Amino acid sequence: MNIVDIITKKRDGGKLSADEIEFFVKGYTEGTIPDYQASALLMAIYFQKMDKEETFRLTEAMRHSGDIIDLSGIEGIKVDKHSTGGVGDKTTLIVAPLAAACGVPIAKMSGRGLGFTGGTVDKMESIPGFRTAMEPEEFMKQVNEIGMAVIGQTAHVAPADKKIYALRDVTATVNNLSLISSSIMSKKLAAGSDAIVLDVKCGDGAFMKTQADASALGRTMCEIGQAAGKKTVAVITDMNQPLGRAVGNSLEVIEAIETLKGNGPDDITELSLKLAGIMIYVGGRASSIEEGDRMAKEALESGRGLAKLKEFIRAQGGDPQVVEDYSRFETASIAADIVSDFSGYVQSIKAESIGLASQHTGAGRLCKEDPVDLSAGICLHKKVGDTVKAGDVLATVYGNDREKVETGAAEAKRAFVISDEPACEEVLIKEILGL
Amino acid sequence: MNIVDIITKKRDGGKLSADEIEFFVKGYTEGTIPDYQASALLMAIYFQKMDKEETFRLTEAMRHSGDIIDLSGIEGIKVDKHSTGGVGDKTTLIVAPLAAACGVPIAKMSGRGLGFTGGTVDKMESIPGFRTAMEPEEFMKQVNEIGMAVIGQTAHVAPADKKIYALRDVTATVNNLSLISSSIMSKKLAAGSDAIVLDVKCGDGAFMKTQADASALGRTMCEIGQAAGKKTVAVITDMNQPLGRAVGNSLEVIEAIETLKGNGPDDITELSLKLAGIMIYVGGRASSIEEGDRMAKEALESGRGLAKLKEFIRAQGGDPQVVEDYSRFETASIAADIVSDFSGYVQSIKAESIGLASQHTGAGRLCKEDPVDLSAGICLHKKVGDTVKAGDVLATVYGNDREKVETGAAEAKRAFVISDEPACEEVLIKEILGL
Repeated sequence: MNIVDIITKKRDGGKLSADEIEFFVKGYTEGTIPDYQASALLMAIYFQKMDKEETFRLTEAMRHSGDIIDLSGIEGIKVDKHSTGGVGDKTTLIVAPLAAACGVPIAKMSGRGLGFTGGTVDKMESIPGFRTAMEPEEFMKQVNEIGMAVIGQTAHVAPADKKIYALRDVTATVNNLSLISSSIMSKKLAAGSDAIVLDVKCGDGAFMKTQADASALGRTMCEIGQAAGKKTVAVITDMNQPLGRAVGNSLEVIEAIETLKGNGPDDITELSLKLAGIMIYVGGRASSIEEGDRMAKEALESGRGLAKLKEFIRAQGGDPQVVEDYSRFETASIAADIVSDFSGYVQSIKAESIGLASQHTGAGRLCKEDPVDLSAGICLHKKVGDTVKAGDVLATVYGNDREKVETGAAEAKRAFVISDEPACEEVLIKEILGL
Repeated sequence: MNIVDIITKKRDGGKLSADEIEFFVKGYTEGTIPDYQASALLMAIYFQKMDKEETFRLTEAMRHSGDIIDLSGIEGIKVDKHSTGGVGDKTTLIVAPLAAACGVPIAKMSGRGLGFTGGTVDKMESIPGFRTAMEPEEFMKQVNEIGMAVIGQTAHVAPADKKIYALRDVTATVNNLSLISSSIMSKKLAAGSDAIVLDVKCGDGAFMKTQADASALGRTMCEIGQAAGKKTVAVITDMNQPLGRAVGNSLEVIEAIETLKGNGPDDITELSLKLAGIMIYVGGRASSIEEGDRMAKEALESGRGLAKLKEFIRAQGGDPQVVEDYSRFETASIAADIVSDFSGYVQSIKAESIGLASQHTGAGRLCKEDPVDLSAGICLHKKVGDTVKAGDVLATVYGNDREKVETGAAEAKRAFVISDEPACEEVLIKEILGL
């Protein structure tokens, strides 16, 4: 087999065989196929696309390029949850305790990574004492005992995806359905859960700008998951404004706790209940999606979800008292209010600008090596549809570096669009695929 | 300017500006743009194509990436001739003396290169004493004195093309009209002549398999040449069987001499007269193409072309007696006849197989560092349309290594297709563009 023939075949619209796809993924990961041939092939795939079977084979080849996590030591149907990325998305911190409280084992491997805020691991570490470094045996034991655990990414999961993604990023070959789907799913399938619930964002603040594109991505990922023998559901949700009101690390943890107490913003509460309901259903703890929804709601209202979060924090070495006493979180030394210059309605809040503003405050990394400021971030006091008077506080920006806070505040202010017309409301949960 | 934006623009069907094209060519040549981004851009160009202006700008950027030869010290309209490459194509050795004999100055820079036989420089070096290494002043003086000179490629001509071509070769991005045209024309324009006559081959043994593809290539190159202010003509010619009967280095020189003596095969003679006629016309020595044709014919029939070749050989240090005495060429120690197993008509002679056979005898290089066996090669005794009886000799394979000759002979034998039906004759000169 020869990589030039493989590039030529795809360039000419041919279908690559499983062997050819494996040859490419293995060769590129091991370094026998150079970057320049890989990027030519990726561009050919960009134009000629891959069909269902090729996309599945690509996913499988990347999944098997590194460690495959074995969760068989955990009883029950393990359910994983993944979001394609949005601004203010702290649903994992709410959904996992709700599902776990209903008997669904959650064994999550999470990373740090670049972004508007830190990764799930960074967010959890804003809880004093919380640690995500543990041995696999300890991790599985915790899931068996209390129903949930989060471990920092230690294993060598899907290295092929990592290398291919880095190349796509600098060769304008990111935006292809098969390449995006296989990238996400190779890691999810390697992570070992039995079922996967995907939250696919669409809108201004998401990679997929339209519902049609998000649906296509969701459908492709469901097909891959099902071909791999894992129940996979994709929920298409709105990301035209940040989710909830908090964007940051400890700020988001606090909002998650508030939501589990029943005081969360409407959008976060609605989405968390829906995702938890689906997880309970695919985890085999409810016989219908409606029953799953009811069980999630009951876990929230009864406080069982909150109790599970507390139990989880304690199990991972964190201070469970944070749930009642937010002063135990590290606090930002600077808080700057953003004030509206106009009266009217909030027409839109550009999610991406809020995300970048949060990153600029120090809440997210700009470079891989940057530390994350766990107390920095943004709280939105107004959301789309709210009325505003000139002088009202739209948001507060938190941080520990005057310059960073000012940069973040200027950026965040530009995110708000105030107009005379009331805004039309976006539907939050647009579609559920794979059920 | 940023290369990812340039890749994205072309990927999305945009038109690249002159600045963007220069940024790419300069950055890639200098090494600030890595191979993997260049190959992604080339694949995007493969799919989205380049328009006339982009193709011209790409050519100009590559042309200016190295030395531009200044031939202004030579009087008259300098005419260059280029063939897109075929098997048995020794027309330069015939056409240049004919045109020079009619007053067209020929100042040719030639290379060695990989191929079925050596390059023009290798072929000329089969003449004892012949040398192509000379100073530019000496080179120009010779053209002014006798009307023609050939110099080995010493200058740093179009290094961008060299680097881009090497990358295209291993990333399945060779076959694109703009990339092929700009590659050829950047070198021709840098070589400094005032007018260019292109012989664009089509058929089995050529890169362009169909007349339509060859015409499109010819037209694009004429457009580039004209945009650069140089009279450019493209002749579309058949390459469904080798040109003439000789394939090799000294074998081709001998056939060229025979042709100048009036004893050449019909196809070589016809094509050489046509190309020389056009060169005489674009060189301003004839007032019409018909007059150019007549002048070329007269130069051949009067022996003035042969005399010019002899003068040229002497001027470059070669033994002019070779023209009368072929035993002065190095001779191959082994000659193997290929005999027909069938009776019938020669239906086709696969040019590419004959070319590879020649390469295998040692007449051409397999690797850049290989020496060329100047006496090796193939002589065809039968051409398409000839009748054959079982036992007739189809061709003779020459060389100095028993194993190489056997490999070449087996390959050459497979090139012949003998059938009961007479073959239809291909028109040799199909089209003339740019006049």
